[in-house]
Amino acid sequence: MLFFTQCFGAVLDLIHLRFQHYKAKRVFSAAGQLVCVVNPTHSLKYAATRCAAAQASTEQGILPPCHHHEAVHDPQVVPCTCPLFSCPWEGHLEVVVSHLRQTHRISILQGAEIVFLATDMHLPAPTDWIIMHSCLGHQFLLVLRKQEKYEGHPQFFATMMLIGTPSQANNFTYRLELNRNQRRLKWEATPRSILECVDSVISDGDCLVLNTSLAQLFSDNGSLAIGIAITTSKVHSSEAEM
Amino acid sequence: MLFFTQCFGAVLDLIHLRFQHYKAKRVFSAAGQLVCVVNPTHSLKYAATRCAAAQASTEQGILPPCHHHEAVHDPQVVPCTCPLFSCPWEGHLEVVVSHLRQTHRISILQGAEIVFLATDMHLPAPTDWIIMHSCLGHQFLLVLRKQEKYEGHPQFFATMMLIGTPSQANNFTYRLELNRNQRRLKWEATPRSILECVDSVISDGDCLVLNTSLAQLFSDNGSLAIGIAITTSKVHSSEAEM
Repeated sequence: MLFFTQCFGAVLDLIHLRFQHYKAKRVFSAAGQLVCVVNPTHSLKYAATRCAAAQASTEQGILPPCHHHEAVHDPQVVPCTCPLFSCPWEGHLEVVVSHLRQTHRISILQGAEIVFLATDMHLPAPTDWIIMHSCLGHQFLLVLRKQEKYEGHPQFFATMMLIGTPSQANNFTYRLELNRNQRRLKWEATPRSILECVDSVISDGDCLVLNTSLAQLFSDNGSLAIGIAITTSKVHSSEAEM
Repeated sequence: MLFFTQCFGAVLDLIHLRFQHYKAKRVFSAAGQLVCVVNPTHSLKYAATRCAAAQASTEQGILPPCHHHEAVHDPQVVPCTCPLFSCPWEGHLEVVVSHLRQTHRISILQGAEIVFLATDMHLPAPTDWIIMHSCLGHQFLLVLRKQEKYEGHPQFFATMMLIGTPSQANNFTYRLELNRNQRRLKWEATPRSILECVDSVISDGDCLVLNTSLAQLFSDNGSLAIGIAITTSKVHSSEAEM
C-alpha cells in the first residue's frame, strides 16, 4: 500500500514539474530564452561545521583557504572549495566543474540569456538552488540561497560567481531580473570569483536580496523565475562614482 | 564660547551640504536630471503611539482610518493621515499637500526624472527622508525610511506614493535606481495611494529594500543618490503572469 502511495506521489510530482516547465516556457518563449527548472539542494550535514570554521577564521583575522590564491601563477591549480553550503569538498579550480557535475549533478546551460526557475521556495532555510551557465567562453555559477541571517526571518540571496579568478571576473557584468505582479527588480553587478567564498558574499549582502514577502510576490505557485543575462563589462554610463 | 562653537558647527554643516549638492550636480548633470538634496526628518514624538495604535487595530482586524476611503465619491474629501512616521495629523486628501509643505517644509520638485540625494544615512532608525514630486499632472511622495524591522538590524525602505486614490495610482509606474561601485539596482512598481498607510507598505516589504551594507556600497560620504522616474502605466512586456 505504502509503495503505491509513494508511486502515486512521484507521478503527481512529475506532472506538477512538467506543468511548471511548460508554463515557464510559455511565459518566456516570446523572448526566445531558455528556461531551466532548478530543484533545491538542501543537505545540511556539513553546513554548521563549515560556517563555524569560516566565522572563527574571520573573527581571528584569518581569511578562509579559498582567499589564498593570488600568489599562484596558474589559475587552474588554485585551491578552491565547493560553493555549495552543504559540501566540505576542497580541490583545485580546474576540477571544480567536474565536482559540481558529478557529485551534485548540477546542469550546465548554454546561452547568454536564460531563465532560472527555482522550485519549492517554501522549503526551510538553509537551502541552495544552483545552476552552471556556460557563455562568452567561461562558466558561471548562479547561486540562490534561502538563509536566516536574522533568526526566524529567512531571506533569499542570489549571486553569480565566475569559475575563474577575480581578475577574470572583472571582465563581465551579470544581470538578474524578477518581473511579476506589476513589479520589476533588477540587480546588475560584476560576478564574484568562485575563489571568494559564496558564504561571505551572502553574509555581506552584496548580492540580490529578497525578503520572504517580496519573494512571494515574485513567485508563482512556489516557483521563482529569475532572468539571467551575462555580458562583457563596460563602465556604467551614469556611474555615480565618476 | 558655546555660541561660537555652535556657529562654527553650523557653518561647517552648510559648507558640507553645498559641497554634496555641487558634487551630486556634477555627477548627474550629464543626464540633465534635477538633483534634490534631502535632509532627514526624524522627530519621534508620536511614532510609538501611532505604531501601537495601527498594530492594535490590525490585530483586531480593524483597518486604520486611512483605509476607509472607497465609499466616498469625491476623492478630495477622503480622510487621510500624514504619511510621516512621526506625525499624528489627520485630515482630507485635498489638504495633505499643504500640510506636508507647511508643517514639514517638504519641497516639491518638478520633472518626470529627478535624483533624490538623501543625506546622513548613518542616523539611527527610525528616520524618514521625504520629497514631493510633481509630474504628469499629479503629485507624488517619495518616502525613504530607515527602520529596524529586526531588532538591531536597520534596513532602508523606499517607496513612491501618489497623492490621490488607489485607482488613480494604477495609471502610473515609478522606477527607483541606485548606481554605484559597479552595481546597479532598479525597482519598478505601481505607486501606492497615500490613502494606504506607508507603514503597512514598508512592513509588507513591498518596496525597494536595502540592508545597511548594500546601502553603504551605494552611498557616497553618507549620502545615497536615488534616481527617480515616473511614467504612465503600460503592461510590462515580459510580465510573468500573462
